[in-house]
Amino acid sequence: MSSGQPEPRRGRRPGGAGSRGQILAAARRLFAEHGFEGTSLRRVAREAHVDPAMIHHFFAGKDELFALSVELPADPSTVLAGLDRRDPSERAEALVRAVLGLWESPAQHSLLAFLRGTIGSKAKTAILGEIASQRILPRIMAGVAGTPEEVALRGNLVAAQLVGAVLMRYVIRLEPLASAGREDVVRLIAPTIQRYLAGDLPEPS
Amino acid sequence: MSSGQPEPRRGRRPGGAGSRGQILAAARRLFAEHGFEGTSLRRVAREAHVDPAMIHHFFAGKDELFALSVELPADPSTVLAGLDRRDPSERAEALVRAVLGLWESPAQHSLLAFLRGTIGSKAKTAILGEIASQRILPRIMAGVAGTPEEVALRGNLVAAQLVGAVLMRYVIRLEPLASAGREDVVRLIAPTIQRYLAGDLPEPS
Repeated sequence: MSSGQPEPRRGRRPGGAGSRGQILAAARRLFAEHGFEGTSLRRVAREAHVDPAMIHHFFAGKDELFALSVELPADPSTVLAGLDRRDPSERAEALVRAVLGLWESPAQHSLLAFLRGTIGSKAKTAILGEIASQRILPRIMAGVAGTPEEVALRGNLVAAQLVGAVLMRYVIRLEPLASAGREDVVRLIAPTIQRYLAGDLPEPS
Repeated sequence: MSSGQPEPRRGRRPGGAGSRGQILAAARRLFAEHGFEGTSLRRVAREAHVDPAMIHHFFAGKDELFALSVELPADPSTVLAGLDRRDPSERAEALVRAVLGLWESPAQHSLLAFLRGTIGSKAKTAILGEIASQRILPRIMAGVAGTPEEVALRGNLVAAQLVGAVLMRYVIRLEPLASAGREDVVRLIAPTIQRYLAGDLPEPS
């Protein structure tokens, strides 16, 4: 680019070169304390001592700021790509395969550190909840039938089974689950996920 | 007791009053590093700079030493009392109810601290695996049909679903699962537990 136009999101602005880092640090604190919904960009700007326009200068929006501030070790839109084009009644195996594949990729170490760090700290656990409900579960649950409350509950159950299996296989490493073949694990837990996604569940009492 | 007999496991021995604490501290370090199976009482004694007989003076055996050194916030034999007298095909609801009941008791805070602490640290995660496979799962899986490998795998899957549900409901507090009625949660996840305990599972490939 030699047009003389300022390169977007690279140039320096009043506030100095530290502004981007200040915004991320402020966002990290506020998201940890108040969650995604409870944190406004205006408040992040105030906390970071920058003009609100500065946030839009560095970040595409609140989603990007959130993703970058919590340092997700993998991008849900990549890991779960194409899942929402499968009918919910046939989505479970692909979902389990994608999650196990991710945990058996080179990302495993950063995922482990991320999970240990977020579960290990009360403030950060809230971030894990935000990530699950804002960034991961909407992709998994897209097109699932039911009221918003029902779909959210189904998503919680899917997350419970997936995270529980990940914990036992990759974090706590219970045997023989830790050494079982990936496709064997898919066939063991996909029926559970399938029931939670689109099967008959009891009505709340 | 005024018989003049020394009261067992109370008296002082060479090594001083600090010995019991030294043994517990040594056991905690060794169990964290080498697990339950990989830690001998002889080695604990050496690490604690006490005579091996001293361990038997203070503790009934390796199981008690392990339980006390890791400071389990609840006693599995109490929480799961009576479960092994139920047929495995009818055990799931009682199991889920017992686990949810425990997490909705005053023990919740110490359980949370325990889970955060063990998952948050790599060394301590090994202890969580030991506790699950040595002290909790044998009670849950007593009398379940199958080879030891099959029963162990079923136990891993039961643990995955239980721990995943506990994480989502009590630790990460995903809604609406976190606010759902206890019996509703029992009816949602007991069928999964029942399948893992005693249902048809696919053969490994």
